[in-house]
Amino acid sequence: MNHQSKRYSVGVVGFRGYSGAELVRILSRHQGVDLVLLEPRTDSEKRPGPLGSTPPKTIPASIDAIRNEQIDLVFLATPADVSMELASGILETGAKVIDLSGAFRLGDGETYSKWYKERHRAAPLLDEAVYGAPEFYRDRIRSARLIANPGCYATAANLAIRPLIAAQVADRSRGVICDAKSGVSGAGRKPSLKTSFCEVAENFTAYGFMEHRHIPEILQNSGLGEREFTFTAHLLPIERGILATIYARTLRVEKPVDLLAIFEEAYASEPFVRLYAPGKVPDLRAVQYTNFCDIGFVFDSDSQRATIVATEDNLVKGAAGQAVQNMNLVLGFPETQALL
Amino acid sequence: MNHQSKRYSVGVVGFRGYSGAELVRILSRHQGVDLVLLEPRTDSEKRPGPLGSTPPKTIPASIDAIRNEQIDLVFLATPADVSMELASGILETGAKVIDLSGAFRLGDGETYSKWYKERHRAAPLLDEAVYGAPEFYRDRIRSARLIANPGCYATAANLAIRPLIAAQVADRSRGVICDAKSGVSGAGRKPSLKTSFCEVAENFTAYGFMEHRHIPEILQNSGLGEREFTFTAHLLPIERGILATIYARTLRVEKPVDLLAIFEEAYASEPFVRLYAPGKVPDLRAVQYTNFCDIGFVFDSDSQRATIVATEDNLVKGAAGQAVQNMNLVLGFPETQALL
Amino acid sequence: MNHQSKRYSVGVVGFRGYSGAELVRILSRHQGVDLVLLEPRTDSEKRPGPLGSTPPKTIPASIDAIRNEQIDLVFLATPADVSMELASGILETGAKVIDLSGAFRLGDGETYSKWYKERHRAAPLLDEAVYGAPEFYRDRIRSARLIANPGCYATAANLAIRPLIAAQVADRSRGVICDAKSGVSGAGRKPSLKTSFCEVAENFTAYGFMEHRHIPEILQNSGLGEREFTFTAHLLPIERGILATIYARTLRVEKPVDLLAIFEEAYASEPFVRLYAPGKVPDLRAVQYTNFCDIGFVFDSDSQRATIVATEDNLVKGAAGQAVQNMNLVLGFPETQALL
Amino acid sequence: MNHQSKRYSVGVVGFRGYSGAELVRILSRHQGVDLVLLEPRTDSEKRPGPLGSTPPKTIPASIDAIRNEQIDLVFLATPADVSMELASGILETGAKVIDLSGAFRLGDGETYSKWYKERHRAAPLLDEAVYGAPEFYRDRIRSARLIANPGCYATAANLAIRPLIAAQVADRSRGVICDAKSGVSGAGRKPSLKTSFCEVAENFTAYGFMEHRHIPEILQNSGLGEREFTFTAHLLPIERGILATIYARTLRVEKPVDLLAIFEEAYASEPFVRLYAPGKVPDLRAVQYTNFCDIGFVFDSDSQRATIVATEDNLVKGAAGQAVQNMNLVLGFPETQALL
Repeated sequence: MNHQSKRYSVGVVGFRGYSGAELVRILSRHQGVDLVLLEPRTDSEKRPGPLGSTPPKTIPASIDAIRNEQIDLVFLATPADVSMELASGILETGAKVIDLSGAFRLGDGETYSKWYKERHRAAPLLDEAVYGAPEFYRDRIRSARLIANPGCYATAANLAIRPLIAAQVADRSRGVICDAKSGVSGAGRKPSLKTSFCEVAENFTAYGFMEHRHIPEILQNSGLGEREFTFTAHLLPIERGILATIYARTLRVEKPVDLLAIFEEAYASEPFVRLYAPGKVPDLRAVQYTNFCDIGFVFDSDSQRATIVATEDNLVKGAAGQAVQNMNLVLGFPETQALL
Repeated sequence: MNHQSKRYSVGVVGFRGYSGAELVRILSRHQGVDLVLLEPRTDSEKRPGPLGSTPPKTIPASIDAIRNEQIDLVFLATPADVSMELASGILETGAKVIDLSGAFRLGDGETYSKWYKERHRAAPLLDEAVYGAPEFYRDRIRSARLIANPGCYATAANLAIRPLIAAQVADRSRGVICDAKSGVSGAGRKPSLKTSFCEVAENFTAYGFMEHRHIPEILQNSGLGEREFTFTAHLLPIERGILATIYARTLRVEKPVDLLAIFEEAYASEPFVRLYAPGKVPDLRAVQYTNFCDIGFVFDSDSQRATIVATEDNLVKGAAGQAVQNMNLVLGFPETQALL
Repeated sequence: MNHQSKRYSVGVVGFRGYSGAELVRILSRHQGVDLVLLEPRTDSEKRPGPLGSTPPKTIPASIDAIRNEQIDLVFLATPADVSMELASGILETGAKVIDLSGAFRLGDGETYSKWYKERHRAAPLLDEAVYGAPEFYRDRIRSARLIANPGCYATAANLAIRPLIAAQVADRSRGVICDAKSGVSGAGRKPSLKTSFCEVAENFTAYGFMEHRHIPEILQNSGLGEREFTFTAHLLPIERGILATIYARTLRVEKPVDLLAIFEEAYASEPFVRLYAPGKVPDLRAVQYTNFCDIGFVFDSDSQRATIVATEDNLVKGAAGQAVQNMNLVLGFPETQALL
Repeated sequence: MNHQSKRYSVGVVGFRGYSGAELVRILSRHQGVDLVLLEPRTDSEKRPGPLGSTPPKTIPASIDAIRNEQIDLVFLATPADVSMELASGILETGAKVIDLSGAFRLGDGETYSKWYKERHRAAPLLDEAVYGAPEFYRDRIRSARLIANPGCYATAANLAIRPLIAAQVADRSRGVICDAKSGVSGAGRKPSLKTSFCEVAENFTAYGFMEHRHIPEILQNSGLGEREFTFTAHLLPIERGILATIYARTLRVEKPVDLLAIFEEAYASEPFVRLYAPGKVPDLRAVQYTNFCDIGFVFDSDSQRATIVATEDNLVKGAAGQAVQNMNLVLGFPETQALL
C-alpha cells in the first residue's frame, strides 16, 4: 500500500506566531495534507500582501468546527494554557494533537507545577502524551494520539547529551553543563520590551539560570539528575538558530574517534542528525531553515574533557519541523516528507 | 559675568523612553545643570544595575512638584498628547519648556489637525512656541519660554534643503524629493510588533508616504509647497541614525564648488553642521553618538542634478542633543556645552 | 512531447561566491538537470561540513573539461573579466552560456567602456547576447546561445519603471529617480573592508551616485535618457534583499487604480511579478529567498506624484533565480521549475 | 604636587585598527597627554571626512622619529610580531611601552611557543614585562617600563575567576569552565572571510576550543591548571562586547551573599569592576563604550553550583580602555582619567 494514497486534513491553531507560521510554510509544500488554519478570533490581523494570492482555508478554532471539518490532526502552536484548554476537546473529535507548547512534555503534574509555577489543568492527559523526540521514541510516537513536541533548547541538548549518558561515558559526578544560545524568534511573536529591536540588537543577554522550563525536559530524557546538570540560556541578536555548547568529562574514552563512535551508533540511521569529524563543529548557517540538528565536538583524551557543539534552527528542528516529522510518523508518511 | 556661575535645575519627563534616556545621558555630563527625573507613575520599572550606583534625584511629574522643586526648565520627552496636557501648567510655574514631541512644531491648530488627524488641545500656545532649529532661529530660541524641538527627519531634511530654497537655486517646479531612512529608536521604546527584533532585523520597509507628520515641519521651514516636496520614510535595521538622500534640480549652479559655497554660506559658523567636499558623502558612523548633522552631495553640472546626503543621529541632533543645544541657548550656556 | 523527458548537464563556474552558491542551492532541487561544479583552482577551499554528505560532481573549469563532460549549459557566476575570457570558448563547445556578470549586458563596446572604464575584451559577442529579462524578452531568450543575466538593481528598477515609459505616462521632463538599497551579498564574497561586519553593521551608506554600472542597463531597457534618470545605491546592513523607491511624475493618470491598471497590463501573466493594491507596498521579508519581484505604489492624483516601491531578493530574482528562470526558458523547462 | 601639571607626549602605532582607533578616541579627551599618531606606511588610507577637521599630528613609526619627537609613552596596537620587533628599540629611546598584542603577556618564551606556535623573537623582554591587569598588579604596573595589556577574553575571565581561586572556594577538581562570546571587533580590522558581514550576520560560531591563545593568560593569572580549565570562544554578530559565562562548583560557600562577599572583598575599591546583587547579571548594553567589567552570578547553595556572568567592552576594558588605565598608572594620572 502506498501511504501517500490517503490525504489528510491538518489544522494549525496559532498560525500567526513564529512557530505557527513556520508550520504553515512547511505544510504548504507537503503533498499529502490539506492545510486548514484555525482562527481564534474574528477580528483577524491583516498583513499587506500581493494581489491575487489565495490564503489557505480558514475556519474558527472551535471544537465544533474541527469536528465538522473532519480534521485528522491539529497542531497547537499556542501558549501552554491554551493548549491545556483545547487538547482534550480536540482529541474527543477523533483528531490527533501535536502540541508545540510545554503543556504535555513533563511526566506528571507535580513536576509541571514545580517548573511552570502553576497547577496543570489537563493533568489526566499527561500519562497518554508521548514526548515527540523521534530519535528516542519513534515507535511510541507512531501510535500516539497526543504528542508533546519538545522544547527548542531541549531538542539540541538531549540529542547531544543522551548518547553519552546511555553509553555511560559521562562522568556525572563532575556535572554536565549546557551553555545554550538562541535567536529571538524562540521568544515568540508577542511584542515585549525584551524582544524589541533596540533592546536586542548589538546586545547579548544570559537568562534562565537553573530555572529554565526546558531543564526538566532535559533531565527527563537524558537521565541526568538536577544537581548533575547546569543550564544557561542566552539571547542572540539573530532571528533563528540555537547553538548549545556542552561540557562534560568522560570516562574510559580513549580517542576522539571513540567518542564519535558513540554518536554514530546513536544516530547512524537518523535522517535529521548530522555528525562532524572530531575537532570540527557546526555553525548556525549550516542548519538554518533546515530540520537538521548538527553535532560536533572537541575532545582532549588526556583530561577526558569533551566540548560538544549542537546546532539547530529553533523554529524547524526546534519546533515546526520536528512537529511535521512527528506528523509524518503519526499519519504514516515518509518521515522526511516536506522536510528535505 | 560668567554664564556658568549660575546653576540650573533641569527636569526630564519621559526619561525611560529612548530620547529621554539620551537626554539623561547628555545632561549627566553637563556641568551647569542639576538633573531631576520627573516620574509619571508610582510603580516604576526597575532595571537591573550594579550595586552601589546612585540614580539621579526623582520626583513626581506633577505641576506642584515642579514648582516646589523650583525647576528652571523641563524637557518633555513625551507623546504629543501628554505634552499638550502638561506644557501650560509647567510654564505657569515659571519653568521653561523644551518639548520633544510634535505638539508645538506647526504654526497653527488647523495644520496640526490636518497632519495629526486630531484637534490640537493647547492651541493658544502655538503662537508662542519657537521651532527649535538653532541654525535657523537662534535668536528667537534664546528668548523663548516654549521650544518645539524639531522632528528627527525634519532636522536632517531642513538642514539640507533650506539653503537651496533660500538661495533660490532649487528648481521647485521639478520638485524636491527626500528619501529618508531611520534607525528603529526613532519609533520609541513602547513595544510593538513593528519594532520587534524578528520583524525588523534582516528586513527593510518603506512607510509614511506623503502623509508623514514631519512633512509639514519641512514645508514650514524650507518654504517648499506641499506639491513640490515628496517624502518617504524607511525603517533601517539599526538602532540609531538617519540618512536622508535628497534629490533636486538646480538653477544657475555652474560647478560643484558653487553648490558647496551655498552650504558654506549657510553653515560656516555653525558648530554642529559639517560639510563634505563635492563628491564625498557622510555615512551614519560619522555622526552616531554625536550632535552633528553631516552634509555632502554629488552634483552634475550638465543636467543640474544634485543628490544631497544628510546624516545625523536621530536620538542626538534629531532629538536629545538638539534639545540640549536649545537649552544651552535658553539658559545662557555655551551652545556646545556637553555636546562635543 | 514532455519537456522533462530529456535531462541536461548544467555547470556552474564561480560556485563559491554568493550568487554561485545560490545557483547551486536552486539547481539542487531542479529535477531536470544534473549539476556539475566547475572548479577554477586546484587548491580548493574546504568548508567544514557534516560527515557523509556527498558534494556535487566537480571538474576543472576548462574548455576541454566542459566539452568532454558534454555540458549543455554553463552559468558564469564570475567577475566580468573572467566571463569575457571564458564565454567564447564555452560557446564553441556547443554549450549555452548564462552570464551573471555585467560583461554582456550593454548593447555595444563603447557604452561598456564608458561605464566600466575599460575596453570590452569580447565585443563580438555583444550583438548576439540577449538581455535576460524574461518579462521583456522572453521569446528572444528562448532561442539565445548567450544570455546576459540582468544586474540586481537593474532588475527591480526596470520592472518598476518600464511599464510607465512604455505606456507614456511618465513625465520624463521632470525626471525619474531611483533610490535603491541593497543587502551586502550584492557586493560579492571576496573579503574587503567595505563589507566587513564592523564597517557595515549599525551603519548605512550611499554610493554609486550617477556612475553606478547598473544605470546604463536601466536606461537601455526602460528607454529613459541619461539626464532623465537619477540613481543612488545604498548599502543596507542585511544579507539579502533590494528595495528600490522610485519617484516619478505622471501624465494623464486620473486615479490610483489607473496606475495599477498599467502595471497589471504589463505583468498580468507574469509568474514572478506580484502587484499590491494602491497605497500598499512590499517589504523585503515578502521576497527574501523567493524569485518574486513585488511592486506597490502610492499615488497622489492631484499632484500626479507616484512613489513606487519594488522589492526582490538580490541573490534570487536579482541573480541566481532569474538565471535559472532563463535556463528554464532556454532548455524548455516550465519557466517556474525549481523556483516556486 | 599636582600630577596633572606635567604633560606627556603619547604615541599610537596601529591607530587604524579597531583597538588603535579606540585608543585615539579615548586619548583625545585626556587632558594630560598630547597625542601623536605613528604612521607605519607612507601611502596612508584616506577616509572621507568633513571639511575643516584637523587630524592629530602624525609622524613616521620609526625609532628615530619617536626619539626626535621625545615621545614619553608608546601604545603598540599592532600584531604580536610587529610588537616584538618594535618594543626593544622604543624602550631604548627612554619611552615606555604599553603593548596591546599577545607578545609579552606570557611568563616565558617556552609557554609562548607552545600557544602561539612560533618562537618568541624578543624573549629577553619577557622578564621585565608586567601584565597590565590593574586589579591584580597595580603597584608593579606603576613602575613598569613595558606593560603587556591583557587579552580581551582573559580580562573578563580573570576578573571573574581569580577571586574564587584566591579565596580557595572553587572546587578545582571538578573544573572551571569559561564559555565566552565576543563581538567581531575583537578579530581586528583586517578584512577576512571570517569577519565578512554575510558570514557573521544571522550566524553564530564556536571556535578556539582548548587552544585559544588567551587560555595561558588565564591559567597564569588565575592559578588554575590547564586540565582544570576549559575555555570556548564564540563569535557574536555584534560589533563590540564580551560576555563570559563561567561555571564552577564551590566549596564551603553557604549562601549567595557569601559568594558576593568574596567578590566584594576583591573589588570593593576598584573603580572599574562593578558587582550585581546575587541572582542579577549584567548584559552587554551596561558596559559598551565603558571601561567597566560587570560581574553577577547565580548560586545554588544545595549543589554548590555557581554560574557567573562577566561582561566588558572588548575594545575598552578588553583593550584600549585598560591600556589607558595602565598609562594613567605609569604616568601618575588619576587612574580613571578620560575613562569615566
